[in-house]
Amino acid sequence: MEDSMVIPTIRLKEGTIEIIDQTLLPSEYRILTLSAVDALCDAIRRLAIRGAPALGIAGAFGLLLAVEERWGGGARHLFDAEAEHTSSFRSDVLPSDVIGVIEAASAKIAATRPTAVNLFRMLDRMRGIYQGKWGSSKELLKALHREAVAIWKEDLEMCQALAAHGERLLKDGDSVLTHCNTGGLATSGYGTALGVVFAAVGSGKRIRVFADETRPLLQGARLTTWECVRRGIPVTVVCEGAAGYLMSRGLVSCVIVGADRIACNGDTANKIGTLNLAILSGHFGIPFYVAAPSSTVDLSISDGRSIPIEMRSPSELKRFSNTAVAAPEADALNPAFDVTPHRLIAAIITERGVVFPPYEGRIKPD
Amino acid sequence: MEDSMVIPTIRLKEGTIEIIDQTLLPSEYRILTLSAVDALCDAIRRLAIRGAPALGIAGAFGLLLAVEERWGGGARHLFDAEAEHTSSFRSDVLPSDVIGVIEAASAKIAATRPTAVNLFRMLDRMRGIYQGKWGSSKELLKALHREAVAIWKEDLEMCQALAAHGERLLKDGDSVLTHCNTGGLATSGYGTALGVVFAAVGSGKRIRVFADETRPLLQGARLTTWECVRRGIPVTVVCEGAAGYLMSRGLVSCVIVGADRIACNGDTANKIGTLNLAILSGHFGIPFYVAAPSSTVDLSISDGRSIPIEMRSPSELKRFSNTAVAAPEADALNPAFDVTPHRLIAAIITERGVVFPPYEGRIKPD
Repeated sequence: MEDSMVIPTIRLKEGTIEIIDQTLLPSEYRILTLSAVDALCDAIRRLAIRGAPALGIAGAFGLLLAVEERWGGGARHLFDAEAEHTSSFRSDVLPSDVIGVIEAASAKIAATRPTAVNLFRMLDRMRGIYQGKWGSSKELLKALHREAVAIWKEDLEMCQALAAHGERLLKDGDSVLTHCNTGGLATSGYGTALGVVFAAVGSGKRIRVFADETRPLLQGARLTTWECVRRGIPVTVVCEGAAGYLMSRGLVSCVIVGADRIACNGDTANKIGTLNLAILSGHFGIPFYVAAPSSTVDLSISDGRSIPIEMRSPSELKRFSNTAVAAPEADALNPAFDVTPHRLIAAIITERGVVFPPYEGRIKPD
Repeated sequence: MEDSMVIPTIRLKEGTIEIIDQTLLPSEYRILTLSAVDALCDAIRRLAIRGAPALGIAGAFGLLLAVEERWGGGARHLFDAEAEHTSSFRSDVLPSDVIGVIEAASAKIAATRPTAVNLFRMLDRMRGIYQGKWGSSKELLKALHREAVAIWKEDLEMCQALAAHGERLLKDGDSVLTHCNTGGLATSGYGTALGVVFAAVGSGKRIRVFADETRPLLQGARLTTWECVRRGIPVTVVCEGAAGYLMSRGLVSCVIVGADRIACNGDTANKIGTLNLAILSGHFGIPFYVAAPSSTVDLSISDGRSIPIEMRSPSELKRFSNTAVAAPEADALNPAFDVTPHRLIAAIITERGVVFPPYEGRIKPD
């Protein structure tokens, strides 16, 4: 992986969280500095940061942010030698005080978006740390910081491993149709489904990307094209209605999408419109692949029917910037995700390898 | 049909053509007055007027406009007693002069959009008139005016008849998913696929409409919701990606779409995204209906492969009003139509009745 190409989607900096404001791309590249948990939650809700793996990292980082917010300029001294002298975090703060602050933040962050499981899983991983026995707050904070950084770093390694496995499914000259954004912006900086394309290109294959624009928020048009252009990969944006046209004309070699939650049997929740692509792929005999970290598999859910689907605001459909694009009196139904049945999925690509059906018992998180 | 509900999509007025500027709906209802053929062609190209049947009428009216434009304030006296006194159309104008002007206009208008056959067919109908033997220009113009008005009037009658046949396919309580706009705005003022819904509601059935927003130009979100709200019909706008979701949850009773051209075997060209809906309907066992005037059937085309597909500007996908919604360096592919194979169509509804498969030899224009 060319490190210069890793996108700084999210990082800890001087006690704050810095993210790229993804609502502004591709017109504007702006870094947003978040110094409060509420600001982070707002950024997640309005999709300034989005993508299941990136949300997992945001959750873990958010707990460190909560400590920083409570003890102004505080916990930063744990990961910033400069800040040690100015920190207001005092040695008489009890681990239980820290845990109280963190648990409140965790509840807030977990309430932002219901479908992607990575957010909950990474908050759980952090809980696994702070629920241990801790003699000093400093030790606890150090451990939490270590874990959050590990979550970020593991995601980057996961993406690389996933992409290396997945790229073997692609041939020189392939055209890959993808949906939403599953690149660096959706992860620690590299990508899942789009990472597979990056790895294939990196190994010398010529690949064209068809980017489904992905209504209503156009993550495919706005973010996937931006990432492909940045890497010099030919990319063509299409409206979602054009998928059948492209496939009927033989223009699509395969479809690769990401996932927000995968049930035990392989049923996969992903951005609304994914199910359409899976059915169309089946109709035309085109392989339909899901690429996601194994942490996306939710063993508590046996099949897709139990995956909660986030319903988002009708205004995302009824307005575009300041323009009304539907009659004000009309209803709008705006599910953010749909569920693709496992039988429509040709393979699930994780950091551990490529799993072909059946998936039951053969896909699981760490 | 409640006449007050007929939309004044297009009409002749004082030697001009008045259309509703459909690019501005639903935010603004503005009448556009066209007094030159070039202005009409521009309005057609930028979809200020669109919809296969409405384009047929626009073509016929456009030829009268050409005469008016050439002989300023001229041919109007034929359909406006007031104008008779001020007309500059002189009795020494030869029928061949008129025909020359009309043929030039016909060529211009025919070049605006390649897919909808109704435009060509109605221009042909007008040609059938002016290619006759004419002793006087006035007689010729009168005949052309009669024919153009007949085309408009027949379209209204066609819509009513089509809707009356089609509404029998709908049950009280049905939810109809439709695509693009096929109501009054796409026709003389009533509608084809959406007209079927209007007729069902008119006969007392409770129907909910799911309006596919229909990217890139959002005719479903902008126009179909506007028409349904105007008629008091419950309408819910959805993004095209949500069709599979809706169907998988049992929320769609049937899909009804319009058509821009139908081949002999029933293969149907319609707004991009229609093929997706047909395949999804097939997957979920939901009836997929096409509703269109018989004039949409093109006997010169044996199957859908020969239907020319209009490719529209990438800018429709890459920009929204003044906002870039894709990386400027990205390509965009913007086919305006796709072709649905006849085997995916449960019935074709025309003004003559409902035709179930096989279609070959059983659907044809007058």
